[in-house]
Amino acid sequence: MFEWIKRLRKEKLPTRKLGSRDEGNDALRLELAEFAPGIMPFLGLTTYLQLELYEGAGRAVAGAPNLESKEAVARSAGITLTKHQRLSEELHRRGREPHAIMEPYTPVIDRFIERIETPDWHQHVLSIYLVGGLFDGFFAELARGLDDAFQGEAIALLRDNSGRDELRELLAKEIAEDPKLANRLALWGRRLVGDTLLVSREVLALSEGRTFVASHVEPIFTELIADHSRRMDELGLTA
Amino acid sequence: MFEWIKRLRKEKLPTRKLGSRDEGNDALRLELAEFAPGIMPFLGLTTYLQLELYEGAGRAVAGAPNLESKEAVARSAGITLTKHQRLSEELHRRGREPHAIMEPYTPVIDRFIERIETPDWHQHVLSIYLVGGLFDGFFAELARGLDDAFQGEAIALLRDNSGRDELRELLAKEIAEDPKLANRLALWGRRLVGDTLLVSREVLALSEGRTFVASHVEPIFTELIADHSRRMDELGLTA
Repeated sequence: MFEWIKRLRKEKLPTRKLGSRDEGNDALRLELAEFAPGIMPFLGLTTYLQLELYEGAGRAVAGAPNLESKEAVARSAGITLTKHQRLSEELHRRGREPHAIMEPYTPVIDRFIERIETPDWHQHVLSIYLVGGLFDGFFAELARGLDDAFQGEAIALLRDNSGRDELRELLAKEIAEDPKLANRLALWGRRLVGDTLLVSREVLALSEGRTFVASHVEPIFTELIADHSRRMDELGLTA
Repeated sequence: MFEWIKRLRKEKLPTRKLGSRDEGNDALRLELAEFAPGIMPFLGLTTYLQLELYEGAGRAVAGAPNLESKEAVARSAGITLTKHQRLSEELHRRGREPHAIMEPYTPVIDRFIERIETPDWHQHVLSIYLVGGLFDGFFAELARGLDDAFQGEAIALLRDNSGRDELRELLAKEIAEDPKLANRLALWGRRLVGDTLLVSREVLALSEGRTFVASHVEPIFTELIADHSRRMDELGLTA
């Protein structure tokens, strides 16, 4: 354990000194990769998470106020479902039953999904957009530490942002039509990042099986939060 | 109009006389094909129908009692969504906005979806299974009369039954575990076929834009009903 804390410290210093984004990325990736779980917990977590994100997107399809936005949300839902299915297939390929591998991780994900539930359609769409981006980013970084042949595909799969552009355009259009939305969504976005990072921290603890010091883990999330702020900015929302 | 009624009559006779299933199929196909609408109404109807079937499947995903059945329903939902997206892309390819082309057909489909709504999860899954099969069969036959380059792909797309096998297995398993389900589902299946064929009849009237004699149209559905009965039989349900 001291080994990874030392590495964590060593790698963080140049990041801060140089302030270069590229170097920062490299440092972050090395750091998050240290926490990579075994391939089975990784597949269990991501397969179930994509299923729940897909289910959440499905609720947004059902509640869409018109056909145009329904189509946009449906496309995004489809991409999440494809991610779930590809991960699920990988479990089948290894002779494992996806539901059995996912099962241990349902409580942590379910609690999260419950916490971010909202009857407001716009908030719900923002959740799909932001939470999907945060978690895909988190697990893609984590995947870099996987010691498995599936590593490359897992990273490519999670880094695939298609579907999210359409959600951003849809949200931008809705905000433009009703500027009062911006305040409500800015607040909601801030809440989402907090809840999502809490789960990410739980995942690190869960998958690692070793104690970690929260203050050491915190800097790991800097880049994920920067990506989140960029998404908020693009919508004209204060992060 | 007399022309197609005459052809309808001519083609029906050998079917009844020979009683051969293959010849019956050929006759049926020629008959339904007579009612084929233009490519735009066809794409509008099927694109929207697949979107609504997908949305219905999404509700079944959300209500699934366990992860195994959730996965099965999600897979089936994904295939319906892929059908919707392929049809929607075809509209984009032609420079049309899918939502504008779907719009005129929303009332007839929405009314149907409302009619078959049920809070019972098993009934709902049976709906997805049976209604998906009936409509895909109906529109695949109708597509044979399309005078358009997309014809072949439309038929292949709608005849793709993947995803439905899993729903059948899921339902068969649930019925085996709780035999009392069989009665309730048999009743529900009978209701579904009635509602679905009513919509199909509306679609024929809608897309044709010409009056048709109900008693002449009726035999067209014989084969669709036979397929439906086979699906019920496979589940041990009395059609």
